Amino acid sequence: MIYLDNSATTKPFPEVVDSFVTVATKYFGNPSSLHELGMKAEQLLTQSREQIAKSLGVKPSEIIFTSGGTEANNFAIKGVALTYRHRGNHIITTAIEHPSITEPCRQLEELGFDVSYLSVDKTGRVNIDELVKTIRDDTILVSIMHVNNEIGSIQPIEEIGQLLTQYPKILFHVDHVQGIGKVPLQFHKAHIDLCTMSAHKFHGLRGAGILYVRDGVRLSPLLAGGGQEMQRRSGTENVAAIVAMAKALRMSLEKYRERIAYLWDVKKTWIRELQAIPDIQVNTPLEHSAPHIINFSLNGLKSEVFVHELAKQDIFVSTTSACSSKKKAPSKTLLAMGADQKRAESAVRVSLSFENTLEEIPIAIRAMKEAIQKLQEVTR
Amino acid sequence: MIYLDNSATTKPFPEVVDSFVTVATKYFGNPSSLHELGMKAEQLLTQSREQIAKSLGVKPSEIIFTSGGTEANNFAIKGVALTYRHRGNHIITTAIEHPSITEPCRQLEELGFDVSYLSVDKTGRVNIDELVKTIRDDTILVSIMHVNNEIGSIQPIEEIGQLLTQYPKILFHVDHVQGIGKVPLQFHKAHIDLCTMSAHKFHGLRGAGILYVRDGVRLSPLLAGGGQEMQRRSGTENVAAIVAMAKALRMSLEKYRERIAYLWDVKKTWIRELQAIPDIQVNTPLEHSAPHIINFSLNGLKSEVFVHELAKQDIFVSTTSACSSKKKAPSKTLLAMGADQKRAESAVRVSLSFENTLEEIPIAIRAMKEAIQKLQEVTR
Repeated sequence: MIYLDNSATTKPFPEVVDSFVTVATKYFGNPSSLHELGMKAEQLLTQSREQIAKSLGVKPSEIIFTSGGTEANNFAIKGVALTYRHRGNHIITTAIEHPSITEPCRQLEELGFDVSYLSVDKTGRVNIDELVKTIRDDTILVSIMHVNNEIGSIQPIEEIGQLLTQYPKILFHVDHVQGIGKVPLQFHKAHIDLCTMSAHKFHGLRGAGILYVRDGVRLSPLLAGGGQEMQRRSGTENVAAIVAMAKALRMSLEKYRERIAYLWDVKKTWIRELQAIPDIQVNTPLEHSAPHIINFSLNGLKSEVFVHELAKQDIFVSTTSACSSKKKAPSKTLLAMGADQKRAESAVRVSLSFENTLEEIPIAIRAMKEAIQKLQEVTR
Repeated sequence: MIYLDNSATTKPFPEVVDSFVTVATKYFGNPSSLHELGMKAEQLLTQSREQIAKSLGVKPSEIIFTSGGTEANNFAIKGVALTYRHRGNHIITTAIEHPSITEPCRQLEELGFDVSYLSVDKTGRVNIDELVKTIRDDTILVSIMHVNNEIGSIQPIEEIGQLLTQYPKILFHVDHVQGIGKVPLQFHKAHIDLCTMSAHKFHGLRGAGILYVRDGVRLSPLLAGGGQEMQRRSGTENVAAIVAMAKALRMSLEKYRERIAYLWDVKKTWIRELQAIPDIQVNTPLEHSAPHIINFSLNGLKSEVFVHELAKQDIFVSTTSACSSKKKAPSKTLLAMGADQKRAESAVRVSLSFENTLEEIPIAIRAMKEAIQKLQEVTR
């Protein structure tokens, strides 16, 4: 199997699954319980929070565990809107965000909020001048993703954060789901107030995510109830998945240090090999893009059929994002970058992890060439 | 170990953990991915949904998977409020609900909604006449728990559902978290529109819960985004935890059929033995109460110290609910039942599963007597 769909989800590390099983089986107590079984679970939770905070260079009190990235994004957007609505009702985001940002924004529009969507240039990046012009007196939130999930473009988060220090009433949220463990981001240096992460994108398990909430930022809970997570996110803590996430993050950051240069080699080789195929147009820019995402178009051929052809050889890639792939809609990000409909409809994404190798590339490339030939014959 | 805190959380069945590991390891694809790995994951999701729907006597399209009970309760309360706010802004619930009902209600009050809290009698049950009097033209939702988490009283859900058929504009939500697998509830017969369940209360794993949403009921998503769960609950599906939940539900319902009579024996023996201890007042009524929850008060002794004393003997009970136990607040349910402060502050909960036995009782009762004696000596 050659798994090239790591931006949809990653295979959990075996050690991570082992940790999950140990905690779920031996330390199954509810962390809110007063007895020893509860206390042990609470200790594991505290240790995980401290370990993750240290890895991210933030305080443990700033780490809120959620069920995943979608919950963290909804919590950030809706939490800020409801908490700071007396300050203003304008939100700025981009045209290329994940649906878990744009859909909550749409819901807020129905409630009377006003949302501006920044455009991106042909490399998939926002323009700082446009952001400055979009800011209003009633802007309460700017939410911009770090690494785009479809084409891998990296937004200028540090510059944006620096700019926003001039607007102390505006909170800055970053969707870091595709960036973490692949593209470093210093939360303090980038003046980030809120930041979303998801365990299953870095070889953790589903059911655990993180919303970083800078000390001092108030947020109306999305999941209100028993008051867990420092009164910010209620629900019995998924301790086993959280301990597993802490381990996955530690292992991912270790792999980053050991293998980031190799991952770049893999990505560059991929792009070179893809560019040599006549019917492929590479969409991912070489500058300001993440080391693990490569997007290309098939010159009008049906990307869905291409995905199935490769799957027959146990090679797994995706059309646009996983969330959008079944809707058969053209790539939102490519359209925002100015690509034509045909190019946006025939997009394919290869997304890597540190487990992928140079050796896989010739095998996958050969299969891709064969698939293209087959598709062309069928189309003719 | 004698584990008597099953209303806080249950130990997952070993078979359930095995299923989780198999799915998380072998079928780790994102169900939204078009390729075979995604399709296998989606098949498992569909099978789990069908199996759970069949067990509950509802349609697969009425089963929405959530991250747990707190999310499902928040989704139900906030979803109805936001979707049907043009119809009215009055909500009716009870004085003894779980915080994941009362806290969302409190948040809605801040947004201008009006919430009525039904009282309960000295057995912890609501009064139908009071409900009738509380209903207004602008009532949009009645949310009433099935089995109370602190004392185990069962609400007259079928009678309430029958009554509410006279008010077609009112939706009926039931928090079934403590009832499922222990006290049968027929969703259709009780005219329930929305119903909450949580896997880790029936030997499943944390990270999975269910909101039953009757066909025809619209709900504004709490977690908006990629459109999973039939556009109602976004986020990459936690397939491994969902498959594990389906298995846990099937096993729990089997155990119910095999062992419910025995569980009643266990509960009755517990109550008889507890009533024989002079310093204990049993709070759980004998009529209309669940087979697995027994609440008693310690005649003013500190229940927290009592919990720790028992834990030294590897016997795990709780003060009120897990969520409230660290706040050291008196039992909300007991106060609503008319108990005095002293009785409400010294409450202890024994909560059983089908794994508990008659043989444990004399051991635990002896330890309880010793703990009471020790506490009395310290107090004197």
